[in-house]
Formats: sequence, structure tokens, C-alpha cells
Amino acid sequence: MSDVRTIAAAARDAAKRLKLTSSEQRDRFLRALAAKIDAQQPAILAANALDIEAAQTAGLAAAMIDRLSLNLARLAGIARDVLHIAALDDPLGERFDAFERNDGLRLHKRRVPLGVLGVIFESRPNVAIDIAALAIKSGNAAVLRGGKEAQHSNRAFAAAIRAALSAVALPIDAIGLIDSTDRDDTLALLRCDDCIDLIIPRGGAGLHTFCRRESRIPVITGGIGICHLYVAADADLDAGLRVIQNAKVQRPTVCNALDTVLVQREAAAKWVPAIVARLAEDSVQFRCDPRAWPLVAGATGVTAAGPEDFDTEWLSLTLGIAVVDSPQAAVSFIDTHSTGHSDGILTADRELAAYFLSQVDSAAVYWNASTRFTDGGEMGLGAEVAVSTQRLHARGPMGLRELTSYQWVVEGDYHVRN
Amino acid sequence: MSDVRTIAAAARDAAKRLKLTSSEQRDRFLRALAAKIDAQQPAILAANALDIEAAQTAGLAAAMIDRLSLNLARLAGIARDVLHIAALDDPLGERFDAFERNDGLRLHKRRVPLGVLGVIFESRPNVAIDIAALAIKSGNAAVLRGGKEAQHSNRAFAAAIRAALSAVALPIDAIGLIDSTDRDDTLALLRCDDCIDLIIPRGGAGLHTFCRRESRIPVITGGIGICHLYVAADADLDAGLRVIQNAKVQRPTVCNALDTVLVQREAAAKWVPAIVARLAEDSVQFRCDPRAWPLVAGATGVTAAGPEDFDTEWLSLTLGIAVVDSPQAAVSFIDTHSTGHSDGILTADRELAAYFLSQVDSAAVYWNASTRFTDGGEMGLGAEVAVSTQRLHARGPMGLRELTSYQWVVEGDYHVRN
Repeated sequence: MSDVRTIAAAARDAAKRLKLTSSEQRDRFLRALAAKIDAQQPAILAANALDIEAAQTAGLAAAMIDRLSLNLARLAGIARDVLHIAALDDPLGERFDAFERNDGLRLHKRRVPLGVLGVIFESRPNVAIDIAALAIKSGNAAVLRGGKEAQHSNRAFAAAIRAALSAVALPIDAIGLIDSTDRDDTLALLRCDDCIDLIIPRGGAGLHTFCRRESRIPVITGGIGICHLYVAADADLDAGLRVIQNAKVQRPTVCNALDTVLVQREAAAKWVPAIVARLAEDSVQFRCDPRAWPLVAGATGVTAAGPEDFDTEWLSLTLGIAVVDSPQAAVSFIDTHSTGHSDGILTADRELAAYFLSQVDSAAVYWNASTRFTDGGEMGLGAEVAVSTQRLHARGPMGLRELTSYQWVVEGDYHVRN
Repeated sequence: MSDVRTIAAAARDAAKRLKLTSSEQRDRFLRALAAKIDAQQPAILAANALDIEAAQTAGLAAAMIDRLSLNLARLAGIARDVLHIAALDDPLGERFDAFERNDGLRLHKRRVPLGVLGVIFESRPNVAIDIAALAIKSGNAAVLRGGKEAQHSNRAFAAAIRAALSAVALPIDAIGLIDSTDRDDTLALLRCDDCIDLIIPRGGAGLHTFCRRESRIPVITGGIGICHLYVAADADLDAGLRVIQNAKVQRPTVCNALDTVLVQREAAAKWVPAIVARLAEDSVQFRCDPRAWPLVAGATGVTAAGPEDFDTEWLSLTLGIAVVDSPQAAVSFIDTHSTGHSDGILTADRELAAYFLSQVDSAAVYWNASTRFTDGGEMGLGAEVAVSTQRLHARGPMGLRELTSYQWVVEGDYHVRN
């Protein structure tokens, strides 16, 4: 436990020194990091091989092992992503909301780093590099707590990060790694409210709930998406099917993938069979509510929905289908089952779309587009730290600017308050 | 306990209905509230008399009883503040960060309410009205948990709030009052993370720490200010004394009042006696560090500082004085003792000021001005919900805009992701 506090306190001190660095120095770190990843390929891949071996011994699923696995191409991709972050604009120093009072007192806000990020992540080892790059780019220190499955890979990446920090004379404690798999150490991190400013969990719903319950530090909740598309009676069939297919199958394992289609009653007889026919091409399985089911009973992959199916984030080629009586019923269904991530409507009716967009309370709401666009890169942020589904600070994709805070700067001529 | 959950759940439902209201309807509520406060003066004052009587019986300090006390003039002031909030711009609906992608997909952010505020406050009874007005103006519901000392007054204000909500056909559960003084009910509120979006404690350091430790909901920490002014060697004596006096004595009981003056070594022989002489006029007491003390030993109200004096928010006519060797030492002193609220420098040197302003990590940093300007009204926010000294979401004074979140709105022509 004391080790976690030591790492967090060292990161807090490093954060103070990071405040003195220039944009150019922080970008130099990113270029050095990309170079270290290249240079240390053999060590990183050897470490990763140990993780893969342990995963195979433990009998992990093939998909899990694939997520864990690094190779030359993936490493090159990780290094390329770091260089991409280096090329983004510096989010710091921006001056905004400036004004001068009638008495001549001048005020503005200045964008400053958040401070120290605590990032808790599960199996993907590239998260360590990704967070280190985004944190330093935005002037923040970070303490990383990786998953047991990737412990050797994380250690190798941490060595590359420290080598790169050292190469450009930045404090090596700016990115700390908690090199243990003890759950008590995660708890200890969540209690370091004097050293850590923000907890970012990168993992499943269990991790998010754990962090929210145990943390004394603000937590970004997100990354869990039970996403809906509502098909209004007047939606264009061909174009709509293309959007539904894209949202469901283009990358089914991610949080912005589609989980449930709601079909307006009058359109159900046409749309439900058409959806099943089109997505069956991609081997999608369907869970249909009692009104959708009779329209496609017997078709390949179709089963009646169970009681929890509409509260499940599928992360796979499964799609829920339900029939609703009205736009109000669609909004109410989404209100009940959505995780507030990404929900949309397909319709030609501008007024109906406006109603839906104003009523659905999700981080991103869509009119005639795939939910797959909820992504920092797609939404113009340049990078993505997390997707927030909570309402404080940042909502939806969080990029570099969302890793900053601001400070009021007040300048006067010996002004006093009356 | 179940009662708290019921109140919170009802507020959550009311928040959904508030989303459907217009700016005009919400302003009508504020005007109705001001009218109800006027109309229900006798009942409110009678309830307040019960609180004052209980406070006197309990032997509370005169200052506490004064904070608790209402009279016709104070009630008129509270009603006037409500009308002032009604006249402010609606923070909702603002459309920002709009852009169109090359493929024609259109994105923007829309400002929306945060949802449901949980506000825990101590003795001042006007907080109930203040929060109700700010919450509804910004489209939020709120659950209020007042202090035991003001329980009768809070109940009377809650009746006025409900009457006003009812008069303009807004859901009466939009502002819930937890009418109990059981600490378990406060705990229950802090656990309602499915119903409450933000906890705002309005009270002392103990309340803030309690909320941060126990809450599963994000907490705005703030309102605790150990504030510093650093006097550089070249500061203008007359003007500087005026600023120090203003910061200390204009309203000593509030969080942005000055707590400690740091004097640059070379200026100490001139400044320390001058500060003591000037502020003694206002009956200020001084706690001097070992280098300041010899310069004023024997003067009225001067004592040597004890070990915790520089970590104390005085909230009274007491001022710490310490001598420092350099601007770096001043920054380091502030880094150690400040609560990150408001800290400033007095100097003619622009470069030195820039160093100080960039190094001191407080919500508001000042050059040649009194710390008393850290206030929503003074800083142009029109109103103030709280002063945040944490880094997430909002920093410094929080006004109506800081009670909002945003939502991404994405509009396409059946766009799909490649």
C-alpha cells in the first residue's frame, strides 16, 4: 500500500515540474517515446510472449488473447499513434472568457493541466503508451494500474516510457506504474485524493462500478454503451438498413456499436424482416421482443428476447429488436435501457428528429447516422482518452482539452472591492 | 433511509419533466417564488423564530445566531436575489463547437442541464431559496439537506418553493427537502448515484471532507480559502496596504478573505510594521513568523505564530505574516499552505508577476488586486452556486453555466463509418 502512495506522491511532484515545461519539450518526449518503442521491440515482444503464454496456460478465450497480443505491425501502429498525438495542437495556455470590468480590473481564464491522472485498465497493453502520450502532451502526470494479464508487457512499456522521459530530461516519475496485481493496491490508488485529480477506468462495467463506489477521487464513468437506433415509420429502407448494418457489424466489440433497434409499429412488418435478412449476411443473431418475434420467427439466428437482453451491452454480433407504438415510447424505452452513450433516430421528418434529439438524454444523439461516430477521432478531437457517459466535466469522447482545467487570472492596478 | 431514496427518485423524474420546460416558464417560477416569499413572510419569520429560540437555548454563539436570523429586510433581500436570477440569461440551449466534416456529417454540442443536484448546507437558511432558484433557472432538479439549526426555517422555505412550483405547473418534486437531521440520511443521499448527478456541500471543511470520503457521486469541493498575498520588494506601499486591508477586513468571514501576507525579505522592515499599524485600526490580530515577529514585537495584537496558524482559514480579523527570501520561496510557501482558492502578488514588475501567476496553482491568481474579487457576481457570472477549488468541471466561482453539461448532436444523411 505504501508503495502506491509513494508512486502517487512522486507523480504529484512531477506534475509541478511538468508545469514548467514547454510544448516543444513535451512533444520531444512523444517523439522519443515512439523511437524507444521501435528500439525496444525485441524486449517488448519477449515480455508480451510471457503474457500470452500465461494467458494460454490459464485457458483465456482466443479473443482475449488476441487483444493482449503484440506483434511488429501492432507495435509500429502504437508508435505511429504516439507521433500523431505529438502533431496535435497543444491544449495548454489557451486564454479564454477574457473581459475587463468597468473599474479596469482585467480577468481571463487560462487553460492548465488537470494535474495527475489515475488510470486503471484491463488487458490491452497499448493503453499504457496511449495514456502516457496523452497525459504528457496535456501537461499531466499519470499513475497507471494495468491488468494482471498484461503485466509483463506493461512493465516493458513502462521501461520505454521512463527511458523516453529521461532522454528529454522530464521527471521519470511523471508516469508511474503500479507494478502489482494486488486488488488492495487499486483501492489504495482510489484513496490518494491528495495526489490524484481524476480516475479514468478503462475496462468493463464491473471496473467502473468498483471505481465509483470506492474512489475518493472524481471518476470518469463511461465506455459502456447500450446503443439504440429508432426507426420511424417514414425512414428510408435502403439507407436505413445500411446505417443499422454499419452500426452493428462494422466493429461489434466496441462501446459505440449498436445493441438494439426500435421499430415504429407501422413500419414493423416491412423493417423487422428486412433487418434480419440484411444482417443475417453478417451472421448476426437477433433477440426479438414479443411483437417483433412473430414477424421473423423461424429465420436463422432469431430467438425471443429474454428478460435482461435489452439491458445487455452485446459487444458481439447480437442485436435486439423491439417494436414501439410511438416516438414517445421509443424515448421512454431508451430512457429505461440506454447507458446514455449513443442513441439515434432514422427519419425524414425534421420535426420528429428535433423531438427525439431534445428528449433523449445521451452523450451523443444521432439523426440519420451510425452510432459508430461517437469517437474522439471521428468527432474531430484528434485523440481519445475515454468516452464519458457521466455529465460532469466532459461528456462523450474526451480528447486532450478534456484533460485540462482552467485557472482565473485577475490583473489590476491595486484594485479593491467596494 | 428509504425516504431519501424516494425524494431523490422523485427529483430524477421531475428533472426529466424540467427538460420540457421553456425558459419563460422557469423564469415564471422565479417570479412566483419571490412573490411567495413576500406573501408567506409571517409563516417564515415564525418558523425562523423557533430556530432562533432553539439556538439560544442550545447556547450557540451570537455570530451563529445572527447567520441564522431572518427579518423583513433579509427576506426582502432574498426575494430580490431571486428576481435578479430570473433576469439572467438562460444558460440552456446554447449551441457550440459546431462543425461539418468533409463527408457532410454535421456535429455540434448543445448545453443541457446537469440533472439533479444534491446540496448539503449548514446553518444559513437562505441557501434553500438560493439553490432552488439557481437550479430551476438552469433546468436542474435538486435535493436539499439543510442543517439542524435551521430546520424550521428550511421547512417554511420549502413550503414556499413548492407553492411556487405548483403555481406555475412545474413538478413539485423538482426541489426536494430531506426533512430530517439524521446523519444516516445524509449518507443515504451521498449513495444515490443513480438519481443525483452532483453533490454541492455548502459548509465548513469537515462537511467537504465527509462528502468526499462517503460520496459515490461527484462532489464539488471548495469554499475553503486560505488566501495569500505576496508583497514583492518593489510593491507600492500605500496602494499595497489598501489592497491588504481590503482583502482582510472588508468581509473577514468569507472564503476569499486574506489569511496570510508573505513579505519579501528586503521589504520586511518597511512593510511588516506598516501592515500592523494600518490593520490595527480595524482591530486585526497578527500571527507572525520568527522573522516578522521581531519587527513588530510588542505592538498591539501581535503574537508569534503557532505551528498550525499558517494552515488555518481564519474567517475572522486575524492575519498571518511571514517573511520569505524569494519569489520561489513565496510560491513554495503558497504551494504548501494554500487551499488553492485565491492567491496574489503585489509588484510593479510584469515579469515577476508573470512568473507568480504561472506558478501558483490556485483557482484564482491575482496581480495587484484584492483576493475579495473571487466571487461569481464580481467575476461576471451573475450568480454563484459555490466556489470550486477542485480541478474537474469548474474552477473558482460556479454560476449558472457551471450547472450545465452538454450533449453532442450529430446530424447526417444516413451516414456510415468507413
